[in-house]
Amino acid sequence: MTVLERLAATIEARRTADPEVSWTARLLLGPKEKAVEKFGEEAIEAIVAAGTGRRDRLVAEAADVLYHLLVMLAAHEVSVKDVMSELERREGLSGVAEKASR
Amino acid sequence: MTVLERLAATIEARRTADPEVSWTARLLLGPKEKAVEKFGEEAIEAIVAAGTGRRDRLVAEAADVLYHLLVMLAAHEVSVKDVMSELERREGLSGVAEKASR
Amino acid sequence: MTVLERLAATIEARRTADPEVSWTARLLLGPKEKAVEKFGEEAIEAIVAAGTGRRDRLVAEAADVLYHLLVMLAAHEVSVKDVMSELERREGLSGVAEKASR
Amino acid sequence: MTVLERLAATIEARRTADPEVSWTARLLLGPKEKAVEKFGEEAIEAIVAAGTGRRDRLVAEAADVLYHLLVMLAAHEVSVKDVMSELERREGLSGVAEKASR
Repeated sequence: MTVLERLAATIEARRTADPEVSWTARLLLGPKEKAVEKFGEEAIEAIVAAGTGRRDRLVAEAADVLYHLLVMLAAHEVSVKDVMSELERREGLSGVAEKASR
Repeated sequence: MTVLERLAATIEARRTADPEVSWTARLLLGPKEKAVEKFGEEAIEAIVAAGTGRRDRLVAEAADVLYHLLVMLAAHEVSVKDVMSELERREGLSGVAEKASR
Repeated sequence: MTVLERLAATIEARRTADPEVSWTARLLLGPKEKAVEKFGEEAIEAIVAAGTGRRDRLVAEAADVLYHLLVMLAAHEVSVKDVMSELERREGLSGVAEKASR
Repeated sequence: MTVLERLAATIEARRTADPEVSWTARLLLGPKEKAVEKFGEEAIEAIVAAGTGRRDRLVAEAADVLYHLLVMLAAHEVSVKDVMSELERREGLSGVAEKASR
């Protein structure tokens, strides 16, 4: 398993965890919009980190983006495997052909 | 290699491609801000897609987010492996311990 | 009339304009999501402009944010006056009291 | 004075306030990136609110966007008047002519 797959599995397992203890459980049990807002917030922080030119901050924020992307997907019952399959489908297609294929 | 690693390798290979032909080359050769803006744009589209409740759109937009996250990282000389290592480092840490460890 | 009120009136007037000629008409006639995405895109560009430290770019991008905020509001049948009334309502309230009043 | 001008004046006055008491003072005294991130967060919340179709939430979030846009401008020593002048300069220009004029 890749680290993203393990992370997705951990997030799935948090669905039934105590929201008092688990931040992920709280996001998955709340309204979907909260998980979406949190992903958006992390995307903004990654953008701001990129602007500072500090590579270590960009690494940490990119990790936050990935984690909250997976939580947002889980909140919408989308599996990370579907997204990876979509990326695989696009492999070998040029950008132009890829857009035409949608 | 995972699909993300292959994608990162493809993006690296585009660095020397013709920007007239390759969208990725154009992003990597232009000012870094363009790659950052493009990532931001895709994050917004994923957020809007989540709001519509259409799973297929969310899958496609999440794939776009991942691709443009990798391009933004490449534009800042950050490798996807660094980000995966950061996620691995966090595995096994609780959220609270993780924040304290930074 | 303030410049924002005149701008909102101009946007309203574009509702019936030819979308081949008017960008605003195109945004108002299309799916609401397009107007929302466009606002998001401009917000990202303002954030990136702020990161560069170039004041002239920040001024131009902030103007774009205001324009596309008004278009997003118009697409959702929200008038800029409602937003200004909300800001007036909050005047004189401390931040803490304001949050409690919602 | 318009409500936005009064709001900008209030934000200016907060520059010397006690950051323990005033949220605005805390944002203006901290690193500029915090003010930028906060604006971005509010833009995301407005986008998510638009997606829910709830007009009252969109009004409240649009007010938050305006407030935090002004704080972000103040943190970068940009006055709201400069942004309003830019919007006035664009009045009477078509979108196409406006882009060409920059």
